[in-house]
Amino acid sequence: MPQYNPPLRDMQFVMHEVLNVVDELKTLPAHAEIDADTINAVLEEGGKFASQVVFPLNISGDAEGCTLDKSTHEVTAPKGFKEAYQQYVEGGWPALSCDPEYGGQGLPHVVNQSFYEMLNSANQAWTMYPGLSHGAYEALHAHGTPEQKKLYLPKLVSGVWTGTMCLTEPHCGTDLGLLRTKAEPQADGTYKLSGQKIFISAGEHDLAENIVHLVLARLPDAPAGSKGISLFVVPKFKVKADGSLGERNAIYCGGLEHKMGIHGNATAQMILDGAEGSLVGEPNKGLAAMFVMMNAARLGVGMQSLGLTEVAYQNAVAYAKDRIQMRALSGPKAADKPADPIIVHPDVRKMLLTARAYAEGARAVAMWTTLQLDKELATDDEDVRKDCADLVALLTPIIKAFFTDNGWIATSHCLQVFGGHGYIKEWGMEQYVRDARINMIYEGTNTIQSLDLLGRKVLGDNGAKLKKFGKLVQAFVEEEGVNEDMQEFVNPLADLGEKVTKLTMEIGMKAMGNADEVGAAAVDYLRVCGHLVFAYFWARMAKVALAKQGSGDPFYTAKLATARFYFAKLLPETASLIRTARAGLKPLMEMDEALF
Amino acid sequence: MPQYNPPLRDMQFVMHEVLNVVDELKTLPAHAEIDADTINAVLEEGGKFASQVVFPLNISGDAEGCTLDKSTHEVTAPKGFKEAYQQYVEGGWPALSCDPEYGGQGLPHVVNQSFYEMLNSANQAWTMYPGLSHGAYEALHAHGTPEQKKLYLPKLVSGVWTGTMCLTEPHCGTDLGLLRTKAEPQADGTYKLSGQKIFISAGEHDLAENIVHLVLARLPDAPAGSKGISLFVVPKFKVKADGSLGERNAIYCGGLEHKMGIHGNATAQMILDGAEGSLVGEPNKGLAAMFVMMNAARLGVGMQSLGLTEVAYQNAVAYAKDRIQMRALSGPKAADKPADPIIVHPDVRKMLLTARAYAEGARAVAMWTTLQLDKELATDDEDVRKDCADLVALLTPIIKAFFTDNGWIATSHCLQVFGGHGYIKEWGMEQYVRDARINMIYEGTNTIQSLDLLGRKVLGDNGAKLKKFGKLVQAFVEEEGVNEDMQEFVNPLADLGEKVTKLTMEIGMKAMGNADEVGAAAVDYLRVCGHLVFAYFWARMAKVALAKQGSGDPFYTAKLATARFYFAKLLPETASLIRTARAGLKPLMEMDEALF
Repeated sequence: MPQYNPPLRDMQFVMHEVLNVVDELKTLPAHAEIDADTINAVLEEGGKFASQVVFPLNISGDAEGCTLDKSTHEVTAPKGFKEAYQQYVEGGWPALSCDPEYGGQGLPHVVNQSFYEMLNSANQAWTMYPGLSHGAYEALHAHGTPEQKKLYLPKLVSGVWTGTMCLTEPHCGTDLGLLRTKAEPQADGTYKLSGQKIFISAGEHDLAENIVHLVLARLPDAPAGSKGISLFVVPKFKVKADGSLGERNAIYCGGLEHKMGIHGNATAQMILDGAEGSLVGEPNKGLAAMFVMMNAARLGVGMQSLGLTEVAYQNAVAYAKDRIQMRALSGPKAADKPADPIIVHPDVRKMLLTARAYAEGARAVAMWTTLQLDKELATDDEDVRKDCADLVALLTPIIKAFFTDNGWIATSHCLQVFGGHGYIKEWGMEQYVRDARINMIYEGTNTIQSLDLLGRKVLGDNGAKLKKFGKLVQAFVEEEGVNEDMQEFVNPLADLGEKVTKLTMEIGMKAMGNADEVGAAAVDYLRVCGHLVFAYFWARMAKVALAKQGSGDPFYTAKLATARFYFAKLLPETASLIRTARAGLKPLMEMDEALF
Repeated sequence: MPQYNPPLRDMQFVMHEVLNVVDELKTLPAHAEIDADTINAVLEEGGKFASQVVFPLNISGDAEGCTLDKSTHEVTAPKGFKEAYQQYVEGGWPALSCDPEYGGQGLPHVVNQSFYEMLNSANQAWTMYPGLSHGAYEALHAHGTPEQKKLYLPKLVSGVWTGTMCLTEPHCGTDLGLLRTKAEPQADGTYKLSGQKIFISAGEHDLAENIVHLVLARLPDAPAGSKGISLFVVPKFKVKADGSLGERNAIYCGGLEHKMGIHGNATAQMILDGAEGSLVGEPNKGLAAMFVMMNAARLGVGMQSLGLTEVAYQNAVAYAKDRIQMRALSGPKAADKPADPIIVHPDVRKMLLTARAYAEGARAVAMWTTLQLDKELATDDEDVRKDCADLVALLTPIIKAFFTDNGWIATSHCLQVFGGHGYIKEWGMEQYVRDARINMIYEGTNTIQSLDLLGRKVLGDNGAKLKKFGKLVQAFVEEEGVNEDMQEFVNPLADLGEKVTKLTMEIGMKAMGNADEVGAAAVDYLRVCGHLVFAYFWARMAKVALAKQGSGDPFYTAKLATARFYFAKLLPETASLIRTARAGLKPLMEMDEALF
């Protein structure tokens, strides 16, 4: 059976030793009272909840899956999920980073994000129930009417109700402009919604007394395409003016998908059969409102793969230390045993260190980005807000796609460490791989993320956002340029920074001739940028570790070794990626469609 | 529901236009009568059997899995598997490339291998039943006593009995030297075997009336380690001298594994409780005898991933042409529709072409290698035999590991083309990914393959085998050096050839200082060699396609476009691989085991 130990020490390292989150947060009025002890205590308790309550339900939830009663349209989540959710609500966890006006604890997002990393390590399928609720909370908080906020936010904050995002339809996922669900305005100011949604995560379940669906639909007079989409809130049970539950609304689960993984989460086909809803935000501006959820969700998906990478790593390490098989090529290392533990074999270490370097790198990148998000949301300095917003916008597709592609690579490596046992369900490793696979697809496929990064975020503003990040890299390089011990990290970082600048300009030039050049290069480009971001944070972590090497704490020795591994064995992927990005569009379009 | 069309045209292209297999085979007395029409007819019929009989059982077999009756120890394969196997036997398919002395048809292995590609595209789990039988046939054919051959071979050739390989035990997979199963010699010349085996594919089932287990075990006086292992044949039902079935033997299935994929194949825990067996080959030389099976099995595993890549590609192409979503960045391509088919998007094409280039490249490499195997087995020229054996030995780990790593990449890409639908079981794509995962593990993990290649096959004979392959590359480069149209293929091929030579020497030098340097570089090294082999065959295919461009057959246009894609977008991976191989051992070993 797998094990999971919350990586509290590493979280504290990133927060307090690398990023100094407390000093940064304290400058914001909303977080003036924050201190390290509070953060650490919350994460410690959060880690206990994740590892002791949610983690034990992971394998059983996968085996059991969700069940739909077709006569009542009710879905039952796997055994124990409801009780764990109840504990979650009772512990006040849903409220962690929510607005105190609606009952939230007002803690910074960077704390909540780390808590979610642990929940995802423990059980991604379970975590999607509260995770999607939080997205619904964000969207209503940003775009709801005062009445909607009053009705829905306290219940979402306390967690007695959960939420969903209802976007996809059978004929449209990526291309929401094609969606058909209709919303007919009624005399009383409500709307009647009709249509079919698919792939609705946590769409129906027995964890909470009500489910608040946020639904994209078209008004009767709406323009075609994505400019004619509006957002509605459609509760499972109608909500009376006093906040109590009314009659069952005409939105119900018509079927559950049978999936590769995340079996414990109900992926529902939702039928809207004249369901009553109310408009969120302005008519025909639904996509913009939905993007509040979507951006949060994209960061959240990155945390899912970080969580899976971490737990897969921990288990692969335990196995590699325990399992004996073959002798090291350089001679026996455990002469007292009939064979050496497999962690002596260089390629086993390579697989382990790949997962470790991706997890620890991702943790730093995610925390820093979420810190920028906290500053964006809480600062009253407009320049700071704009800078932070730009950096979050730039980093979001990288976190979504780079973390999840890496999560796929890392969980698969960790499975491989187990040999044949990795393929067997009881060891738990193959579930991590199956669960990790969806993260590359939902909330915008990784190809869509790459187009968002290169087309919109980078070329779309002539590289302004990228330059903001580039300045951070440059400042660090200049600062550490005189430090001899840092050369092994700073030189490849500086080199990659220059290459990214050059590559960006090249693609930009080509794209002026043919816009499809963006699509041809985008996926490679995103991975190159991902490595630039990781190299920057690995260099920053190495700096701290170098400074504390004398402390005798082996944590810093391990950090430094992992940084060196990252630069020696993972970063060089950029050499190929730059070549293939540069190879451009022609090799992809030469073959006529009919010849495929 | 997925579809599958046997790629007969491409098989014929490789066999007859690129490799001229008929001319090569005709020089061998055993195949003097072979002709293209026979080969094509067999493959056409084989393709029908695969696509019409075996393919329809793939998804249902995955959903149903195998069932063990614990009271009788009998296993029932999924619905339809038995009947399909009966048709397989009635069609004479097991005998295709078997020795006519035992009822075989004596066709070359290159034909059988292509048939297996199609069976694996159709249903890997089903195909493992006859596939393992064929391995048992090979081992007994090479090492059995005349009596064993007489008793077992005709039944394995006709397919009325199947076979297995019983190697792995709970505490040993890679490291067979640790195995504990005991064989006690009996007065009548038989042996009594006791122990436990795990991960026995096709270990127990209802497809055939008897199962011939080839079991590794230790004699009482055996030396420790891998030099004390002997091979035994242990039938499920004892076999009387007249070949009829006797009493049930004490080898039975104690449990079935619950796996990530290949659910339709029974992965059995086998208990030997004083089971009667007879010795195959010499005492304590069991590993060598087993390696006859193992080498055939490794080529077979490569064919599994080739098969999965091909079928995943076909389905992803069909979906990409059908599914409309978004407009091309360069402007609408299907203006009459509300969106463009997703095959217009460059990255969708990149994912499709990756699968296509890996499948078609693998097909050429596999057929050429199997042709060398046919020559090795049938030639009476000792020099030719040695050369062919060396080339097969060199290529076997590459086929096993490079094909299966690529199959994992390619099936995952093909799933991704389907977006969210790729994650849903009914579309069939996620099964290809799950099935493909085991191929990187069994019959020697891909790390073991890389050590076999670099440590044993390359450095172990000072590069002699590699030089034999290098000579083929060099001859081709020199021959085509004057052909201007071939420069785009020949130049990167020649360049990579030189880099492989240099890299090999570098690693060889380092390994003299520390043998673990082999383990640190081996996985990257194997992929570099894989690309060298693929580049060589892609260049050879491009040459044929160029020569026939004037024919007006679009097949050659597509072949050329795929070759160009391979050189532009896949081969450049070597740039990173060479860097990471060169980064060597230090970044892997710096961290103390306790710090992981």
